[in-house]
Amino acid sequence: MVKIGFLGPKGTFSQEAMLEYVKSGGEFNECPYNTMPDLIFAVENDEIDQAIIPIENSLEGAVSVTLDMLATDVDLKIVAEVVIAINQNLMVKKGTKTEDIKFVLSHPQPIGQCRKYLDSKYPGAVIKYLYSTAEAAKEVSLGGKDMAAIGPSTAAEVYGLDIIDREIQDNYNNLTRFVVVSKKDGKKALNNKTSIVFSTDNKPGSLYKILDIFSLWDINMTRIESRPAKKQLGKYIFFIDLNGHIEDEDVRDALTMVKRKTSFYKFLGSYPEYCFKNNLSG
Amino acid sequence: MVKIGFLGPKGTFSQEAMLEYVKSGGEFNECPYNTMPDLIFAVENDEIDQAIIPIENSLEGAVSVTLDMLATDVDLKIVAEVVIAINQNLMVKKGTKTEDIKFVLSHPQPIGQCRKYLDSKYPGAVIKYLYSTAEAAKEVSLGGKDMAAIGPSTAAEVYGLDIIDREIQDNYNNLTRFVVVSKKDGKKALNNKTSIVFSTDNKPGSLYKILDIFSLWDINMTRIESRPAKKQLGKYIFFIDLNGHIEDEDVRDALTMVKRKTSFYKFLGSYPEYCFKNNLSG
Repeated sequence: MVKIGFLGPKGTFSQEAMLEYVKSGGEFNECPYNTMPDLIFAVENDEIDQAIIPIENSLEGAVSVTLDMLATDVDLKIVAEVVIAINQNLMVKKGTKTEDIKFVLSHPQPIGQCRKYLDSKYPGAVIKYLYSTAEAAKEVSLGGKDMAAIGPSTAAEVYGLDIIDREIQDNYNNLTRFVVVSKKDGKKALNNKTSIVFSTDNKPGSLYKILDIFSLWDINMTRIESRPAKKQLGKYIFFIDLNGHIEDEDVRDALTMVKRKTSFYKFLGSYPEYCFKNNLSG
Repeated sequence: MVKIGFLGPKGTFSQEAMLEYVKSGGEFNECPYNTMPDLIFAVENDEIDQAIIPIENSLEGAVSVTLDMLATDVDLKIVAEVVIAINQNLMVKKGTKTEDIKFVLSHPQPIGQCRKYLDSKYPGAVIKYLYSTAEAAKEVSLGGKDMAAIGPSTAAEVYGLDIIDREIQDNYNNLTRFVVVSKKDGKKALNNKTSIVFSTDNKPGSLYKILDIFSLWDINMTRIESRPAKKQLGKYIFFIDLNGHIEDEDVRDALTMVKRKTSFYKFLGSYPEYCFKNNLSG
């Protein structure tokens, strides 16, 4: 039995991602956590075996808290990735009329994803930011008939709300990539990905020299993300995902060279590439 | 008289940055705006001549809404940059006792910058996210004696609050870089910076090829930031800042080549490099 944590309460997209992940087989015991730091530290402190955490959204970009914690606060490996489609819904207490909606509640990311919808349909509504879509749904279920929550349809089920508008996000290519982190290494599949994080000296061309290594070894970089090094404005750490597994000779040799050429380097794991079947845009 | 907009109300870090910028000379008429889109579109629609907008914080990273709007929603040029130190303060209504504080109000960025302080001093406090530090200060000034706001000392002055704790941010290297955008081109100084945004074909090594151009022309890249292209997960646009001015021969030639090698390219402006005098870490 594998104890897996997710960002709860029930009715979040994290729960949807977890259900997708556990479908791949095995027996799981599902544990909700209230905050991202609590969830990630629970793996570090052996309370749970794995945690599923959002790392990137196709509209809003990187999830900063996840990246920063993986880089500096814990020593965990990415063992899997999962991509799910994010469909946002406008949910209200039974009997609420659209013309009475004065408050819209959600997490800042869904609000950002529905900006155009909100500007055109509810321009006067006051936006209230909460820690999760589930909390927003809960607050609407306990509140008056002048409120609406934005979130996944599972949240409407859990908190007994009516969905009055479906798929309200501005862009239909709204996908979130989650990773599963663990203290143990992941499995190797036919197609794999590898994630690393590093920083370079602040010399001209130092990032270029690292990408030069991947070019030399014909390694395809699928993603590069910069985050502030938090020491000085203008200094960054870089997160890179690439195709291949650390046990592949070319990846191993290239990363040995990367480690030699960087002032800070951390291997974040090799894991099976997720095949998203419902990707409309190809 | 130059009409310059900033993210108001009075008492925000944006106002502090604007005061720093206008010190450099000239006559300005200062106009507060409520939201970042309103502020940026006000320049696009000729309501004002310039807007000062935050683009990057040394701890929290890029300000996504700013980057996304400059890339896709408007056609403005960066004409100046300003860097200011961000000192966060805990502010309360006169007579509030620290042991009574149950709610902490601020914008999500300051909350993120004071996470360790809040976890250690106010672990049980409920965090309420608002659109600006000034709004948080205003709500505390109108609310009960169980609330505190996090924000700049100017907000305490504007809303008559007591500062009960100063410099509460987790990291003293807390700087925010603002840029001034306009429809007109900027001035050229001795040391200049240039900003561009582009996307490449999704082929292996395509970003590397662009950095190769800067390496060939000996151009120093000071920053690279990726943002989702919003069309498909795994497709990105890249923001790059580099040393030099578009009127410098090497920069002009290198950018001509970059334009040729990218599927989307936009010149965001050349502007004087800001010299931050109070940078503790060098």
